Amino acid sequence: MDVVDLSHTFTQFAETWSPKVVARLNDYEIKVVKLDGEFVWHDHPDTDELFLVLAGSLTIALRDGDVTLGPGQLYVVPRGVEHCPITDGLVHAVLVEPAGVVNTGSAGGPLTATYDDSLARP
Amino acid sequence: MDVVDLSHTFTQFAETWSPKVVARLNDYEIKVVKLDGEFVWHDHPDTDELFLVLAGSLTIALRDGDVTLGPGQLYVVPRGVEHCPITDGLVHAVLVEPAGVVNTGSAGGPLTATYDDSLARP
Repeated sequence: MDVVDLSHTFTQFAETWSPKVVARLNDYEIKVVKLDGEFVWHDHPDTDELFLVLAGSLTIALRDGDVTLGPGQLYVVPRGVEHCPITDGLVHAVLVEPAGVVNTGSAGGPLTATYDDSLARP
Repeated sequence: MDVVDLSHTFTQFAETWSPKVVARLNDYEIKVVKLDGEFVWHDHPDTDELFLVLAGSLTIALRDGDVTLGPGQLYVVPRGVEHCPITDGLVHAVLVEPAGVVNTGSAGGPLTATYDDSLARP
């Protein structure tokens, strides 16, 4: 595995709501994702999910209150907790979660992203 | 769990080579650590270990070559691979690894840090 330059990875794709695996840690994956606008309410019944914002402002709407993250701030959404990412403009974020987690969780729908590890070195 | 502001966490302690848990993700921990100088050669036989540098320059010496990380760059040391972190001045880094991993791994010795989750919210 090689060094991952997070800023560089964001120059390698344009699409939003489509996480890209950039590194692996045991059976976990480190992903980068561009977010813009409002996602869908969903949860991940079997896992926590870490959001780390590198650029922009991300609000994670939760049923009992919102959390807003700026650059250098992270939040872990507990397993089974419904959440909806909402941004005011473009956000660059890092996700950490077990391999195989789907972005829309149990909600599914048209924003469900295809698994993409094309940016990860073998 | 609350929002973790990574920059802020580094204002809350001074000691080096003493990782502090700031968040939990399933059975993994997110730690912040200040590094300065040369650590000890060691490995973690049972787990990969992620280093993300936020400030400064970190060289991870490996038996078959070195890796150098600057701000925004990450590297995953594979399980069982001997490594020795070396810095040129103070480094702020984030570690991601399973709960309970000890900083000196199988090497032990005087730089072995006490487990510290005093910065993590309950």
